[in-house]
Amino acid sequence: MTTAPLAIPMGDPAGIGPEIIAKSWAVRALRKLPPFALVGDPGAVRRVWNGPVETVGAIGEAAAVFDRALPVLAVADAGSITLGTPEIGGARAALQALDRSIALVRDGEARALVTGPVSKAQLYGIGFNQSGQTEFVAERCGVAAEDAVMMLAGPSLRVVPITAHVPLAQVSAMLSVELIVAKARTTAAGLRRDFGIAAPRLAFAGFNPHAGESGMIGREEIDILAPAIAQLRAEGIDATGPFAADTLFHARARTGYDVVLCCYHDQALVPIKTLHFDEGVNVTLGLPIVRTSPDHGTAFGIAGTDQAHPGAMIAAIAMAGQAADRRARA
Amino acid sequence: MTTAPLAIPMGDPAGIGPEIIAKSWAVRALRKLPPFALVGDPGAVRRVWNGPVETVGAIGEAAAVFDRALPVLAVADAGSITLGTPEIGGARAALQALDRSIALVRDGEARALVTGPVSKAQLYGIGFNQSGQTEFVAERCGVAAEDAVMMLAGPSLRVVPITAHVPLAQVSAMLSVELIVAKARTTAAGLRRDFGIAAPRLAFAGFNPHAGESGMIGREEIDILAPAIAQLRAEGIDATGPFAADTLFHARARTGYDVVLCCYHDQALVPIKTLHFDEGVNVTLGLPIVRTSPDHGTAFGIAGTDQAHPGAMIAAIAMAGQAADRRARA
Repeated sequence: MTTAPLAIPMGDPAGIGPEIIAKSWAVRALRKLPPFALVGDPGAVRRVWNGPVETVGAIGEAAAVFDRALPVLAVADAGSITLGTPEIGGARAALQALDRSIALVRDGEARALVTGPVSKAQLYGIGFNQSGQTEFVAERCGVAAEDAVMMLAGPSLRVVPITAHVPLAQVSAMLSVELIVAKARTTAAGLRRDFGIAAPRLAFAGFNPHAGESGMIGREEIDILAPAIAQLRAEGIDATGPFAADTLFHARARTGYDVVLCCYHDQALVPIKTLHFDEGVNVTLGLPIVRTSPDHGTAFGIAGTDQAHPGAMIAAIAMAGQAADRRARA
Repeated sequence: MTTAPLAIPMGDPAGIGPEIIAKSWAVRALRKLPPFALVGDPGAVRRVWNGPVETVGAIGEAAAVFDRALPVLAVADAGSITLGTPEIGGARAALQALDRSIALVRDGEARALVTGPVSKAQLYGIGFNQSGQTEFVAERCGVAAEDAVMMLAGPSLRVVPITAHVPLAQVSAMLSVELIVAKARTTAAGLRRDFGIAAPRLAFAGFNPHAGESGMIGREEIDILAPAIAQLRAEGIDATGPFAADTLFHARARTGYDVVLCCYHDQALVPIKTLHFDEGVNVTLGLPIVRTSPDHGTAFGIAGTDQAHPGAMIAAIAMAGQAADRRARA
């Protein structure tokens, strides 16, 4: 029995997706990457890469091909592509590749999903109505978008933004004990299941400067975060805080927890991207399938110039493979 | 003519101030530190340090003493001190030392002010009514607190929080074109005068995730930050942005500016403390005197245990000396 491969939908073919997937294949032995197949348009890869590419008729054939060539499952034709210039045809092909890849993982033909970067602006042009790939994947898996948790993971830090793409001035009103407890439960379960951490340590960042200084600089810590943390501890989850955010992310502090739950987008994204800009992985917790992705966009500005750094894609592939292994052994 | 020394008020004598000042003196040659004197209670130093200490009758004698002993200008008696336990007597002595040090620098007897960490809670107990040492120094220098700018500086990053110790939910309402322009002017002037940067490059961090995505996720960038940046550029200041905060602080991004102006406390403090936790310097720009301080607190929890890391104090002394040199040459 051969191992089922990971499915990697190519992302927008005018962006750096095909290039970083091919570059990841090129270091498969050095980085000990599990077998994977690019799902999408073979022409999109050949346009940006001179290495060996082999089209497979079914994703199950990918493992046998993987040693000698990048396996590509052809499921879409992007038509004419101008690298760096996103177009409707490319967006349509990217969405077909994503949709097919999700189905392959759900059916067990692929072990995990690692998504290439897409252009949301282009997807909206073809009627896509989710706020991002994560929400689309969740919906296709029968999970409500609000029950999926986005975690960003780098070599020395994992963070979960409790709220994400909302105006900062609205975040305080969106925070609630229920929301925080739900995100934390999913995070703890995900770290146990997919990361092999038996008793995950969850640290919470305060919302206000100095975590509110006992209510002197805001009350979100007292009114919302502290009760949520108390409830989680009562459930047996190792939750601590809220801590002042500014002293929570330096090297010594990072040894004290497995993940930080942050109140808003930049509180989570600033430290992870400051520390791990080229190797951050976006992991979706709370799904029936394993899903990761490199934590960067399509980078249209450098598409086709051979400058794209595959570090985050390589890390996303490795992390997905490890998580799938853990689920298979469980 | 001997060089006037820097004046270093000891900070709260129950905290780590005296220890890190003494430890800085111990590496004066290795780190090429300019002559300085501890201003405060000689007993507070002797309690935590076995090295040579010499009391001077006037701060002008410090330079001659500096090679062989830590010069101490005795201006206060803290009374009985329990290390790690802040008391009213210590706070009173700390304030006397600070007040006297400011006067010495204003009178030209000392070249610059480097303040040790104080306990605000204790200071409030003796009638101190400023929100921090920075505001107290500004007031004593005849500068309105709102005209002084706090900049945090580390080896690879400088940041200025436009707002600081206010609840995060109130920040949006506090941001204005006038406030931002005023802070930026003072910042640019300070970098020219004290840091020798002829044409400082000021980058602005957006307030919302992804800097608001063209108004899709909040309008502070369009309504407030962009007009302020345009006004600054019209004045000839190299101001750019607003940029998405999460991609503004990694190593490559940091080469593109001399300072980042941030909308709120944690947006500035999280990246600087994540990167430079043990060497961050707090610089007050916009004053008639040079003033720096280590960017950390009294650390009562480790006071008297010889564990305090002097890195930030050493950096604060070096930076103050360089700034004073630049002003003297101007």
